[in-house]
Amino acid sequence: MARFKLTIEYDGRPYVGWQRQDNGPTVQAVLEDAFAEFAHGEEITVFGSGRTDAGVHAKGQVAHVDLARPMTSDALQAALNHFLKVRETGISILKIEEVDAEFNARFSAKGRHYLYRIINRRGPLSFDRGLAWHVIRPLDAEAMNEAGQRLIGTHDFTTFRHVECQAKSPVKTLDYLRIERHGEEIHMLAGARSFLHHQIRSMIGTLELVGCGKWTADDVTAALEARDRAALGLNAPPDGLYFLRVDY
Amino acid sequence: MARFKLTIEYDGRPYVGWQRQDNGPTVQAVLEDAFAEFAHGEEITVFGSGRTDAGVHAKGQVAHVDLARPMTSDALQAALNHFLKVRETGISILKIEEVDAEFNARFSAKGRHYLYRIINRRGPLSFDRGLAWHVIRPLDAEAMNEAGQRLIGTHDFTTFRHVECQAKSPVKTLDYLRIERHGEEIHMLAGARSFLHHQIRSMIGTLELVGCGKWTADDVTAALEARDRAALGLNAPPDGLYFLRVDY
Repeated sequence: MARFKLTIEYDGRPYVGWQRQDNGPTVQAVLEDAFAEFAHGEEITVFGSGRTDAGVHAKGQVAHVDLARPMTSDALQAALNHFLKVRETGISILKIEEVDAEFNARFSAKGRHYLYRIINRRGPLSFDRGLAWHVIRPLDAEAMNEAGQRLIGTHDFTTFRHVECQAKSPVKTLDYLRIERHGEEIHMLAGARSFLHHQIRSMIGTLELVGCGKWTADDVTAALEARDRAALGLNAPPDGLYFLRVDY
Repeated sequence: MARFKLTIEYDGRPYVGWQRQDNGPTVQAVLEDAFAEFAHGEEITVFGSGRTDAGVHAKGQVAHVDLARPMTSDALQAALNHFLKVRETGISILKIEEVDAEFNARFSAKGRHYLYRIINRRGPLSFDRGLAWHVIRPLDAEAMNEAGQRLIGTHDFTTFRHVECQAKSPVKTLDYLRIERHGEEIHMLAGARSFLHHQIRSMIGTLELVGCGKWTADDVTAALEARDRAALGLNAPPDGLYFLRVDY
């Protein structure tokens, strides 16, 4: 038995999310189907480092699998990408490494990093439809960045958490949150050991209200301290969210 | 009669090119159809600053039109984007300005700027299929940039010109050419008053041979001095080419 670590890129637009479920296509199911084809029908489970929601993308999701057949990482990557048919699925295996049996994509993770893309302009999106949040009203990225610093550190993030979030505790430590403007694009980069369900979309949605001048940084602090989902500013759409990478 | 300058973004993947023709969908025809709908059937010609080939994209193509009906630029932009249906056409009007009757999108242009995107990695492209040139062999972007400097200035670019290019002279002045690596992406930025047909794709195709070590900078100089299409290294695919902007 050999364990392999996969680094995966996917366009989340056609999927109801990472995790296998009955109500639509999932990234996990497509990957497991490709592994089954590769392994002549043997069922192989793909363990992800974390779930992504419907319409959320990944540039560096990580997963692990156990394979009975010995194989080099390069040959496995080539075979899997062949069965994955990126033109149809929008899923690409960027890297495969053989790892120790102790490695676990989810439980060994020490840090998770996300990007959220806003395109801030009047004209409709041609290239980036479903790949960024289109905000027409002009945003002040510096004010957003400044207000975002109020969220850094260890807090009870109940306000920024989906009501169905399954995490045991609403207390998380946000390591960094940076908002930068690059021309018409605004990027939020955020990292933590782990995030609550909808936490990043709730943070950027709230900071967008600061960007357009409706909220102040103090309003963000008040929302955080309320520890109440009803105090949330706005939950941003999945379109702009990218799972960037995992530290181990 | 009022003249308007349009700044246009388009995803070139579904098109046989900018210019109206009989063998497939074109950006110009889709724009003119949208103007005809807007003007209740009146035929309105959209004059572009230059053509783009099949599969080539634009982030800032410029065109001009003459309209009989007086209108504000903002209202015109909103109406046109409505008729353009970006979800179906991949064409978006980024900006409209009213201009003098002397303004001509093609003949008033003083500089044209292009970007060429290479994605240099092993894994197949998910997000960027048709939107970048996928090169698997590792490329040395610094060597490419250094060799690219041999092309700057006024030269007879016959080697880098499509055999069916309709320009009167093969002599052009390349103002700048820069190649930069950003992670797994390699960007070529190039600007000139005007370019020959396929000039940018021929330049980057040839510089890719330098990047992988098959050619030296001296080979690029020799190809340029040969003034012979047969001396060309390689013509790159349209996928990575973006018309960025026009100076007036």
